[in-house]
Amino acid sequence: MSVLVVGSIAFDDIETPSGRAKGVLGGAACYFSLAASYFAPVRAVGVVGSDFPDAHLEFLRAHGVDTQGIYRSEGSTFRWGGRYRESLNERDTLFTDLGVFDGFNPDLPEAYHDSEYVFLANIHPSLQLRVLEQAHAPRFTAMDTMDFWIEGAREELERTLARVDGLVINDQEARQLTGERNLVRAVGAIRSLGPRIVIIKRGEHGALLFDQEGIFSAPAFPLREIQDPTGAGDSFAGGFVGALAREGKLDSGALRRAVIYGSVLASFCVECFGLDRFRELESQQIEERFAHFRALTTF
Amino acid sequence: MSVLVVGSIAFDDIETPSGRAKGVLGGAACYFSLAASYFAPVRAVGVVGSDFPDAHLEFLRAHGVDTQGIYRSEGSTFRWGGRYRESLNERDTLFTDLGVFDGFNPDLPEAYHDSEYVFLANIHPSLQLRVLEQAHAPRFTAMDTMDFWIEGAREELERTLARVDGLVINDQEARQLTGERNLVRAVGAIRSLGPRIVIIKRGEHGALLFDQEGIFSAPAFPLREIQDPTGAGDSFAGGFVGALAREGKLDSGALRRAVIYGSVLASFCVECFGLDRFRELESQQIEERFAHFRALTTF
Repeated sequence: MSVLVVGSIAFDDIETPSGRAKGVLGGAACYFSLAASYFAPVRAVGVVGSDFPDAHLEFLRAHGVDTQGIYRSEGSTFRWGGRYRESLNERDTLFTDLGVFDGFNPDLPEAYHDSEYVFLANIHPSLQLRVLEQAHAPRFTAMDTMDFWIEGAREELERTLARVDGLVINDQEARQLTGERNLVRAVGAIRSLGPRIVIIKRGEHGALLFDQEGIFSAPAFPLREIQDPTGAGDSFAGGFVGALAREGKLDSGALRRAVIYGSVLASFCVECFGLDRFRELESQQIEERFAHFRALTTF
Repeated sequence: MSVLVVGSIAFDDIETPSGRAKGVLGGAACYFSLAASYFAPVRAVGVVGSDFPDAHLEFLRAHGVDTQGIYRSEGSTFRWGGRYRESLNERDTLFTDLGVFDGFNPDLPEAYHDSEYVFLANIHPSLQLRVLEQAHAPRFTAMDTMDFWIEGAREELERTLARVDGLVINDQEARQLTGERNLVRAVGAIRSLGPRIVIIKRGEHGALLFDQEGIFSAPAFPLREIQDPTGAGDSFAGGFVGALAREGKLDSGALRRAVIYGSVLASFCVECFGLDRFRELESQQIEERFAHFRALTTF
């Protein structure tokens, strides 16, 4: 089953307590695509500038990512710089140069119209809706968003939320979106906006899934060292949607297993800078860590 | 199997976003005793002032708590006042009047010497050690501590740590005790000080157990409303040690189940102000919530 993702493609400058990386490939669409690629064929939609090396596209294609939905525009690729604090839970954005991402106008290639699993990474909610409308018969749709759109594009955001099956969002954003401090009540308020499935990402504390059958709590994997948290949330989403597509079911059991696969991919992602962990990661390691998650939670 | 606890007994003034309570019964020894009382006979060691009503002691005894180790001293019972912030994760101490707790000198009644499960709640580490030395043949010993002793009584703390089987501590204190930001590494450092079992309490994010077999991650129970977080950690410890005593085993399976029982008791505790939830709580509700924890974590 095919997975479609739309989102940013970027060059990142990253500083963490473990080191730094400059101009490395990043962006939600890349993290998502690579994570999901371990489970299903992925179709990526995004924009890059004239400075974007073909080698990056080849890297994605080597992982089974269809890149025909990534178009090239005259100008610079989106650049982002961030510095993580000692706790790794907080980061300061050092700069954001939108470049060609500013005029991003996602149009799906004809071959993408039949995509069955659609993920709308964090872009303007109107663009998310535009992509959604081009997918003819998706089996499952989900989206992410951020504080910037919650504050600045509330109406468009609610229109898009009303159309998706699932929302994957972090705890602070869930509170901001609903004005509810308590997460159980916040999720109730989110569901009244549309999504029947809500996943709350809590960073080092794991994730909560709210579905038709109740609540599922997934831990984060306890790691001795985290090199770089960048992309953990998008890798989670990629693992989650990818695993759902591979299993082909949407019952509560499938959703729970997919949340664990999402957590597995996020846990690998943060072990190295940028996307580096995905250069070496093998499917067998993913299955092994999935088993570790079972050992971590069984009583 | 008998459970012994030594710790504070207090009158608390509590303010939370849900309301306030004034002069209510509190203190680590009370929260622990009541939580543990659902699983095993409990023996409490503490001090109260001449202002302490007999009715409170009768409340404890009605729950099967042996109070002959609680002695009365001339003066005022320990009083503490705290105000929780909106997030419930942070609180400001408004006042601390130690009263008779200042001269606390724990001596175990003869009948307590054979206690098999011993919990040293958060008091000066020298007093913790003094109690430990009076327990003749404990099967399992564990302790709590706090920032105040980590900073101000390091040497005594390390002496006590070297003698216990387990440490139950919150994440911030674990970091402070070891200087390690990463919890996996912090626990490694704690174990080198003595305890082979370490439990990291993470409030609304649950708890982590590190034992001979690896790591176990327990979620907190997702509640729609938390009235008052006071005593959650001590109720957790009470449920944990009580459940261990009831089961009579110390293997990894027993430890994991006990961590879940601790989480169950903590989740009930925070539903009402002070100790009020324990006035009505029944064993059957505890077993039902234990089953809910399984549903919450199974995949």
